This record gives sequence, structure tokens and C-alpha cells, in this order.
Amino acid sequence: MSEGLAAPRRRGRPARAAAGGEPAARDRILAAARSEFAERGYDKASIRGIAKGAGVDPALVHHYFGTKDQVFAAAIERAFEPALRAPDMLLAGPHEEQGERLARFFLGIWENPTHREPLLAIVRSAVGNEAAAAVFRDLVSSRLVARVAAQLGVPDPRLRAELAAAQLVGIALLRYVIKMRPLADADPEHVIALVAPGVQRLLTGPDPLDAPAA
Amino acid sequence: MSEGLAAPRRRGRPARAAAGGEPAARDRILAAARSEFAERGYDKASIRGIAKGAGVDPALVHHYFGTKDQVFAAAIERAFEPALRAPDMLLAGPHEEQGERLARFFLGIWENPTHREPLLAIVRSAVGNEAAAAVFRDLVSSRLVARVAAQLGVPDPRLRAELAAAQLVGIALLRYVIKMRPLADADPEHVIALVAPGVQRLLTGPDPLDAPAA
Repeated sequence: MSEGLAAPRRRGRPARAAAGGEPAARDRILAAARSEFAERGYDKASIRGIAKGAGVDPALVHHYFGTKDQVFAAAIERAFEPALRAPDMLLAGPHEEQGERLARFFLGIWENPTHREPLLAIVRSAVGNEAAAAVFRDLVSSRLVARVAAQLGVPDPRLRAELAAAQLVGIALLRYVIKMRPLADADPEHVIALVAPGVQRLLTGPDPLDAPAA
Repeated sequence: MSEGLAAPRRRGRPARAAAGGEPAARDRILAAARSEFAERGYDKASIRGIAKGAGVDPALVHHYFGTKDQVFAAAIERAFEPALRAPDMLLAGPHEEQGERLARFFLGIWENPTHREPLLAIVRSAVGNEAAAAVFRDLVSSRLVARVAAQLGVPDPRLRAELAAAQLVGIALLRYVIKMRPLADADPEHVIALVAPGVQRLLTGPDPLDAPAA
């Protein structure tokens, strides 16, 4: 279980090996961190347990990532990589179909089991623990919500982006975590067709404070 | 810490006392169950721990509620009591304002700290544990979604009710659990005004499979 350290050791101390890059060990550490957070919960997860799962020395985990919070942040960033194209994707097509594109993009990520499992682990940790929620919140705000909001030419763009995210995150929660039926079994295209108009309105619709009867 | 058992014992065995009703002990057990599930997680929560928290004998917890799953179901039912008026509330006003009424009703429950804390404990347990998710799912489906769906005169009423629930549950998650800003600080009436049209369309709007351009 120590193959991850074996390679750095051949080249000297972990610090030097890390500076030279050891992507396989980095990836193993992030995958082990996700499992550790998902299985033990954020409070009980430890750098030692993550290192054991990755087959590396705890010093290497500290070296690459720092504290437990920072390992968690790195695991979130990796899990969110597929989602970080959302702001570009909003611009790649007709303005009046942004709601539909965002819903299809989001469900496409969650329908892919390779992407879904890391996201489930992260969401479970963030819901179960305040410290994990803070890390999750800061990353999603800065990397995703702020960049989507920057594309919206409406008042309160961040609030609207967060409410659109709430619709999609709520679907992920009820469909993939709680598995409510019929939602868990519904054709993704049917779900997209039903929610797209509401998401579109959140992203681009009139300001309700200007037009309370809208 | 055994005052809960003391009262039944005055009247005989726990079984007799339970049949006669012991609402104070029942309530203490449900409150202790919420704390136990929230603090220890569903897997590690135990009847013994719940009994200790409530100051009663474990036999009384078994007697009132049965298994751990059944205590959890009872705790969910108690936490959801305020929400169970949702189906009646949908009918109590103009049809074209159902989305707004549902959003205001839902946020009103979550804005009340007395209601929010039990709901947070339940949601955290259901997200973190498959067995808790199953209990949550069955109760929400039968007690809430099915009854809201029965009020909707549209195709796929359950799927639509679940998607409207997804919008509102997603708001609860991002506002009260993850505490994303600006959503966590937003005026509830502003949130209601922004999401009501989308919720209304989910509940009563045209079938997108009939009119894909809608």
C-alpha cells in the first residue's frame, strides 16, 4: 500500500518529488479523500486515513494539499471540474434557450456515473458538516455562481443564479440522493422540458420588483 | 434522568401507561431522537442514546415507536407537521397564485426557527444515510407529494409536484444549510417573487411534450 511513496523516495524526499509533479499520487489522494469524507463524515475524516486509502505517507498529503479543509477544497474543485464549463456554455447558443441549456448541461453531468459519484460525496459532506459547507460555499460562489452571474444582464444576477442553481441542485438531491419517484426514473429530456422555462425566467426574466403582477 | 419512566411506573407497566398516553415523554423522545440523529448520524444513532437523551428507559422508546427506522419516521412526521397543510393551502386562493402561495408557505415554515431546526436535522440525516433517505422518501411521497399532486389538473402531476418541491428544497439547502450569499440574506418576499412564476408553471403550466416550443 506504499507504492505512492515508493516513487517519490526513489527521487529523494517527498518535497522534491512533489515539486517535480506526481499526478498519479495526487489523483489517488483526491479519490481517497472523497471516499474518506463520504464514508467517515467530515468530522471523523483524517489526513492519516486519506493517506492510507491512497497508499502514501501522510506527509505527502500535507505536502500536496495542506490541511484537511484544503484537501476537501481540492476534492471539491476536482469534482466540480465538469461543471466549470457552465458559464461558457451559457453563451454558446441563443439567449432565449439559456435555461434549457443550463438544465441539460447540469443533468448531463449528474447522469454520468463517473461525475456523479464524486459530486454525491461532496454534497453529502457539505450538508452534514458546517466546516465542509463553508469550503463548498466559497468555491461554488467564486468559481461557478459569480461567473454565471457575470453573463446575466439583469438586476440581482447573483441571487438569480443562486435560485436557478437551487432548482437544479434540488433536482439532484431528490433524483440522485433521496431517489423520489417518479423523478428518479423520469426521462432527463422530460425533466429538462418541464424546468427550462422557470430556469430561463430566473436567469433572464423581468425584475419582479418592477412588475409585481408578472 | 428517569422522570419519564417514573410517571408510567406510578400507573403500572410502561405498556399500560403508553396506552393511556404520555405525551410529554413521547415529545421528549422525539426531540432526543432528532438530536441523536443530527449529532451522531443515522448509522451511529441508537435507541439507547435516544432514551438517555429523553431521560427514559430504552424499553419505553421501543414501546412507543418500535425500531430505529420507526423512531426516525415518527421524528420526520413530527418535523413535517407544519408542512402537511400544503395541499389544503394550495386550494385556499386563486388558482393562478398557487406557485406564489406554495413558495410563501414553504419559506414561512423554514423562516421559523422552531420549525427549521427539526427539518434541518431530518434533511441532514436523509442526505447522509440510505436507510434514512428511504424513510424520508416514503413519508414525503405519501404524505405530501401525492396529496399536492392530487390537486393538480395536469399530466404527470407527481413529477411536476416533485420538480416544484425540488425548487423549494434547493432553496432551503442553499439558504439555510450551505448559507450561500446573497440567497441566505435575501428578503423572503424577494425570493418568493422571483421563484413564484416558475413554480406556478411547474404546477399548472402547459405540458411541454405537447408544446415543445413553449
